[in-house]
Amino acid sequence: MPGNTFGTIFKITSFGESHGPAIGVVIDGCPAGLEIDREFIQKRLDRRKPGQSSITTQRKEEDQVHIMSGVFEGRSTGAPIALLIYNKDHKPEDYERFKEVYRPSHADYTYDQKYGFRDYRGGGRSSARETATRVAAGAIATLLLKNTGIKIYAYVSQAGYVKLEKSYIELDMESIDSNIVRCPDAETADRMIKLIEETREAGDSIGGVITCVIKNCPVGLGEPVFDKLNADLGKAMLSINAVKGFEIGSGFAGSESKGSEHNDEFQNTEGKISTTTNNSGGIQGGISNGEDIYFKVAFKPVATIAQSQNTVSSSGGNTTLEGKGRHDPCVVPRAVPIVEAMAALVIADHYLRSKTSKI
Amino acid sequence: MPGNTFGTIFKITSFGESHGPAIGVVIDGCPAGLEIDREFIQKRLDRRKPGQSSITTQRKEEDQVHIMSGVFEGRSTGAPIALLIYNKDHKPEDYERFKEVYRPSHADYTYDQKYGFRDYRGGGRSSARETATRVAAGAIATLLLKNTGIKIYAYVSQAGYVKLEKSYIELDMESIDSNIVRCPDAETADRMIKLIEETREAGDSIGGVITCVIKNCPVGLGEPVFDKLNADLGKAMLSINAVKGFEIGSGFAGSESKGSEHNDEFQNTEGKISTTTNNSGGIQGGISNGEDIYFKVAFKPVATIAQSQNTVSSSGGNTTLEGKGRHDPCVVPRAVPIVEAMAALVIADHYLRSKTSKI
Amino acid sequence: MPGNTFGTIFKITSFGESHGPAIGVVIDGCPAGLEIDREFIQKRLDRRKPGQSSITTQRKEEDQVHIMSGVFEGRSTGAPIALLIYNKDHKPEDYERFKEVYRPSHADYTYDQKYGFRDYRGGGRSSARETATRVAAGAIATLLLKNTGIKIYAYVSQAGYVKLEKSYIELDMESIDSNIVRCPDAETADRMIKLIEETREAGDSIGGVITCVIKNCPVGLGEPVFDKLNADLGKAMLSINAVKGFEIGSGFAGSESKGSEHNDEFQNTEGKISTTTNNSGGIQGGISNGEDIYFKVAFKPVATIAQSQNTVSSSGGNTTLEGKGRHDPCVVPRAVPIVEAMAALVIADHYLRSKTSKI
Amino acid sequence: MPGNTFGTIFKITSFGESHGPAIGVVIDGCPAGLEIDREFIQKRLDRRKPGQSSITTQRKEEDQVHIMSGVFEGRSTGAPIALLIYNKDHKPEDYERFKEVYRPSHADYTYDQKYGFRDYRGGGRSSARETATRVAAGAIATLLLKNTGIKIYAYVSQAGYVKLEKSYIELDMESIDSNIVRCPDAETADRMIKLIEETREAGDSIGGVITCVIKNCPVGLGEPVFDKLNADLGKAMLSINAVKGFEIGSGFAGSESKGSEHNDEFQNTEGKISTTTNNSGGIQGGISNGEDIYFKVAFKPVATIAQSQNTVSSSGGNTTLEGKGRHDPCVVPRAVPIVEAMAALVIADHYLRSKTSKI
Repeated sequence: MPGNTFGTIFKITSFGESHGPAIGVVIDGCPAGLEIDREFIQKRLDRRKPGQSSITTQRKEEDQVHIMSGVFEGRSTGAPIALLIYNKDHKPEDYERFKEVYRPSHADYTYDQKYGFRDYRGGGRSSARETATRVAAGAIATLLLKNTGIKIYAYVSQAGYVKLEKSYIELDMESIDSNIVRCPDAETADRMIKLIEETREAGDSIGGVITCVIKNCPVGLGEPVFDKLNADLGKAMLSINAVKGFEIGSGFAGSESKGSEHNDEFQNTEGKISTTTNNSGGIQGGISNGEDIYFKVAFKPVATIAQSQNTVSSSGGNTTLEGKGRHDPCVVPRAVPIVEAMAALVIADHYLRSKTSKI
Repeated sequence: MPGNTFGTIFKITSFGESHGPAIGVVIDGCPAGLEIDREFIQKRLDRRKPGQSSITTQRKEEDQVHIMSGVFEGRSTGAPIALLIYNKDHKPEDYERFKEVYRPSHADYTYDQKYGFRDYRGGGRSSARETATRVAAGAIATLLLKNTGIKIYAYVSQAGYVKLEKSYIELDMESIDSNIVRCPDAETADRMIKLIEETREAGDSIGGVITCVIKNCPVGLGEPVFDKLNADLGKAMLSINAVKGFEIGSGFAGSESKGSEHNDEFQNTEGKISTTTNNSGGIQGGISNGEDIYFKVAFKPVATIAQSQNTVSSSGGNTTLEGKGRHDPCVVPRAVPIVEAMAALVIADHYLRSKTSKI
Repeated sequence: MPGNTFGTIFKITSFGESHGPAIGVVIDGCPAGLEIDREFIQKRLDRRKPGQSSITTQRKEEDQVHIMSGVFEGRSTGAPIALLIYNKDHKPEDYERFKEVYRPSHADYTYDQKYGFRDYRGGGRSSARETATRVAAGAIATLLLKNTGIKIYAYVSQAGYVKLEKSYIELDMESIDSNIVRCPDAETADRMIKLIEETREAGDSIGGVITCVIKNCPVGLGEPVFDKLNADLGKAMLSINAVKGFEIGSGFAGSESKGSEHNDEFQNTEGKISTTTNNSGGIQGGISNGEDIYFKVAFKPVATIAQSQNTVSSSGGNTTLEGKGRHDPCVVPRAVPIVEAMAALVIADHYLRSKTSKI
Repeated sequence: MPGNTFGTIFKITSFGESHGPAIGVVIDGCPAGLEIDREFIQKRLDRRKPGQSSITTQRKEEDQVHIMSGVFEGRSTGAPIALLIYNKDHKPEDYERFKEVYRPSHADYTYDQKYGFRDYRGGGRSSARETATRVAAGAIATLLLKNTGIKIYAYVSQAGYVKLEKSYIELDMESIDSNIVRCPDAETADRMIKLIEETREAGDSIGGVITCVIKNCPVGLGEPVFDKLNADLGKAMLSINAVKGFEIGSGFAGSESKGSEHNDEFQNTEGKISTTTNNSGGIQGGISNGEDIYFKVAFKPVATIAQSQNTVSSSGGNTTLEGKGRHDPCVVPRAVPIVEAMAALVIADHYLRSKTSKI
C-alpha cells in the first residue's frame, strides 16, 4: 500500500523520478479563493535547487514550476492544484554504472528487494529530487498560512562538528539567507562554510542539523492521541531523505532534567496567558499553546562521496564502487527550504483540521 | 478532524477517558485465523499498569481486558476486534480541584482553548491512561508478528542523568524484566532505581530515554517518500505522552560524522547480503534492509509533581497549584511496553502493506 | 484491508457480532460542545429493534445504549464517542445447525471462503444486528444536524408488490410513525400490512423500497468528482444489508426523458434562487443546490424464510435447509431508521467537510 | 475536505479542468512489475473521446496520454504512475457567455455558491472531460486484472425510451463495439441510433442505461459492513457525471419478489459450488461469490441542449440561455468505457485489499 500522500485535509500526492519526464505534486484540499503567486513558489524552489552556490552540488537544474490546474485568474478554485516540474540534465550514461551496483547507504538494495527491480537512473523515486515537489506544495501551504500571520523559519544550526551554540531567541530570523550556508550567525556560518569546502576537497561529506521555529501559531492546533502536532511534525521531518533524528522543545536534553525545572508555569500578564519558560516547545498534550514551536532535525552525511567504497553488485557479488560525479558535500543548506515546506504542510493541515473542533 | 485512529491496514481506533466508564480500542484489519490469547494481552497490560512496583505510582488499576468482538473459538475472524478495559478507582473528589486550575505542562489549558471546555477528571482524554489501549492493541500486533519471527525489545537506557553507556548489542534483551526499572544492565539499573527513589522523596520527577530494538525484520518493509518506516516509527513514538525526541540509527550523533565513516558498506557473506556497520539503523530509503532496527525515544519528566507551582486558573487569574496525590516519579519503566506496542503496530501495519508491493 | 469505518471527518467505526458480548461504534470527529441526549439515541434504536410490532420478528432485543466515552456533563468533548449495546437473547442451540450449512443468499459461504472460517452464531458479523450501531451513531449525527435545521425523513414507499404511487410532496412526513409499516398513507399502509401478514403466514418474505427526503439542506454540501453527495449517499445506502438499488431524483425513469423536459430551470423569486422542477433531486454536479434531496432505496426480500431450501453444507455436499425460527417477513419497516441514520451520517460528514471549502 | 481521490490501496487522484493546460491522474498503489502498455491506455481513451462517430459531439479532442512517472522499461516500478493529457481545442470565446449565466442542471450555480467563484471555461472542474482521467487510470487497473482472468464488459442497454429487453446472458459481449452505440444487439442498436439522430436534429438530448458485467471474479472480494463490493461499485458509478441510479442483481424489480423466489440456492456440481440462480448479482454479504457480477447504471439526459431555456444570471436576475454549440445528444455510448474503468478500479482495489484477509 502506497505512501505518496501526506496530510488529511490539506493533502498532497507527489510523483516522479529523478530521470523521468517530470516530477510533480497534486495538492487537494486547498480552500478556494487563495491568491496563488507562481513567482512565490518559484523562489522557494530556487532556494532548494542544486548549483545555487559554491558549497552545493554543481549539477544544474532549472526546476521551473508549472501550474497545471486548480488556479483561475490568480486564485485557487477549490479544485486540486497540480504542479509540474519537467526534468532536464539527463545524462543516462552517468548512471548506467549504478545499474549493477548497490551504492552504500542508498536505497538501491532495499528498492530492488521490495519491488523486484528498480529504476536505477539517478536513484529513481528514491532520489532527493523528489523533495522539490515538497517545496512547491509547501509554498502553497505557506501562502495559506500567511493570511493567519503564522511564520516559519528554518536555519542550519550544525554542519558536521561545527555547532551554533546560541538559541533561536538570540538570532535574527531575517538574516538566514544572508550567507550561503543559511546559518543566521555570521561567525559560525564562516566556520561551517570552511568545513564544507574542506569536506568537498577531501571527496567526503558531512551531516548537520536544522532548527525550525514557528511563530504566531494560534492555540489549539493538533489533535489528541495519535495526530499530536509534534507527532505529525516529527513524521514530516523524518520522511525527508537522510533525516535520522527529531527533537522538539527540550528534546533529549530534557530527559535529564527534573519536573520542577522542566514544567512551564503559566502566567497571566495583562490579560494574556503565556508560559514563563518554553521547554514544551509550544505544544502541550499534542496541541499548540500559543508559544513558539521549535524543533531540531538531524541529517546524516550525504551517502554519495567521491571515495572508493566496498559494496555488493546487483547480482550479489562483492565489488568496489568508485566515487565520482557531482554531489553535495553537505545537504543541510539546501534542506532548509524542505524543512520549512514540510512544517508549513503540517501546520496548514492542522489549521484546517481545527475548523471543526467545536460546534 | 479527529486523530484517534492509527495505521492504514492494521488500523486501531482508541477511545475513552481516564474517569469515564471505560477505555477501549477497536482493531480493524487484523487478518483472520490469528490465534488470540487473552492472557498474552493481559500480561502486556500488567507491565504498564500503575502500582506494579515500588518506583511507580501507588495508584492501583486492575486493567482487566475484555474481548468484545472479532474473536471466535480463539482465533481472529477478520471482523474488528474491540478490546475494553473498565475504569475503576474513581475518586472524583481527588480531581475536583483541577477543575479550576491549569496544571503546568499538562494539556488542561490547550484542551480548554481547543474545545471550549474539558473533562477535567484525571486529565480526561489527555490522561496517559489512554496508552493502556495502545498496549492492548499492540499485543495483537505482536501476536501477528510472532508468526513471522520478528521480535521487538524496549528497555530503559536513561533515567534522569543516569545513562546506560552500552550499545544494545552488548546487552541481553531477555533480562529486561529482571529488575523493576527495566534496564538490562544490573549495575546501571541499581543507580537508576536509587535516583528514582530519591526523586520521589523530593516530591519531584525525572525524564528518561527508552531504546527499542527490532530484530529479524524482513527486507522490504516501509514505503518510499512520506510513509518511510522510520517516519512512521517516529510518529508512533512522538504520539506517546511526554515524548520529546526520537532518533534512529546514528541519530543526532551521526550529523557530526563524515560520509566515509557513516556509510554502511554492503558485503556478501556466504550468500547473505548484509552491511558491515549499521549506522542506518536497519532502514535505507525508508525501507528495512534486514539489519536490526534500533531507535531511541526521549521522555520529559512527568509533569505531575508534589511541589507547589505557579499557574493560572481556568478563569484566567494567577494562582498557585499545591502538589499532592500519587504520581510516577519517572515514567519510563512503565513506558517500555508502550514503546514496544507502538513499534509492533507500525511493523504489523507495514508488514501487511508490503503484501501488495509486487504483482 | 478492513471496511468497518465510514466517513471522513465525522467518522464512525463499528464492531461486534450478533452473538458476541456486545456490538458498538466509535464516533470520531463529532465537534465539541454538542448536547448529547442518551434518550434521543435510545428512541432511535427502539424504532429499529426487533419485536416492536406484529409485523416484525418476534425475537426480543432490548438494545440499551451505553455511552462509554466522549461525553461530559451532557456535551460532546471532542474526544471519540463510544456507544455500546450489550447482546442478550443468546440461544446458541438455535444457531448450531447453521454451523454446517450455507444458508441461501446469506453471507455464510462468502465469509467462509474469504476468511477460512466464520462465526456462525446468528450470522456473526454479517448479521443485520450490526445496523443497530449505525442507528446509534446516526442519532449523534442527527443531533449535530438539528442545529442547522436540516431534517431527514424516510418512509416505506413499497412493500412487495404494494406501491405507494404518491410523491413525497403529497405526503405528511410527520405521519410516518402513525402506523407500524411506516408508510405515511393510511390506505396504502393497510394494504402493506395485510401483505406482510399473509407473507408471514406463508413462511415467506418480501422486499420493499424506502424513500428518503432531506429538507433544508444548505447549498454547497458535497465534493466534486468522486465524493459527490449523491455518490456518498448511494454508497451509504448500498452498504445496508439487503439493499440492491439506489436512485436519486428522476432516477431510472429519468433515463427515458429528454433534456428539454428533464433540465431544472433556475428562477429568482423575490431574491431567492431556486429551480422550477427538481429532477436533479437537490444535487447538481455532486453538490447540494438547496432544493429537497430525495432518493429511493430498494431492499430484496429477507433471505431467512420458513420454507425448506436446497443448499450445500460447509463440507461441500448438497443438502436441504429446513426453515424455522423467528424472522422478519419484510425488513423495510425496521430499515426506515437505518436509512435515516446513514443519510444523517453522510450529511453530517459533508457539512463538516464544507467548513474548509473557502478561505 | 477534498474528494479527488478514489480507492484505498489501488488509489487514484485526479486533477485538471476542461480548459486548463492539462488534465491528469496519479495512480498510487499499483504493484511493481506490471507490464504497462501505453497503447492499451490510448485505445481506451479513444473509445471515450468526443468526435469518434456520427452520434457523438463533433468537438475534436485528441487526448494523447503521456506517462510521466512510475514506469521503467515497460513495467510499473511501485512508484506512483502519473498520466497526463494536455488540453487542446481551446476556444475561450465559446465559453465567455457562460461566465454570466447559470446553465440549468449544470454545476455552475452550486460551484459558485460553494467556492465563491468558479472557473467558467467549459465547466472547469465539473466538466465531464475529467472522466478521461478515470478511463486512463482504469486502463492500468484493467491491466492488473488481466493477470487474474477477470473480465469487465459494459454496454448500452437503453437509450431514451429504446430498451434492450434481453439479459446479458443472451448477448455476445465481444460484439459490443460492433456498432457506434455500443449495444450488442444489432436490431436494438439501430433503433437507438435512429432515436439519437432524431434527438440531435431536434436540438434535444436523451438519457440512457448502461449494463456492466464482471466475469471470472474470484470468491472473496469485498469487505463486510461499509465497504461492501456492491457499495463501492455503487459509489464509483454514482460519482460519474449525470448518473442518477444504480442497481445490482435483481435491483428494484427484486423488491417485488418473494424470498422463496429470490433466494439463490447453492449447488455442488462436480466439486464446484455455485448458485442455481443469480438474483444476488454475484455478491452476498458484500463479498463476491464467484458468480457473474452485473449491474445497471442510469444516466439522465445531457444537460446541454440546443434549445432556449429560462435561467438566472450570476448576478441573480432572471434571464434566458440560448442553446448553441456542439454537444452529445446522448452520452451513454461514450460513457461505456467510463463505466468499465470505474468498475476496474473498484475490483482492482478490492483484489489488492483481499491479500491481507487471512494470515
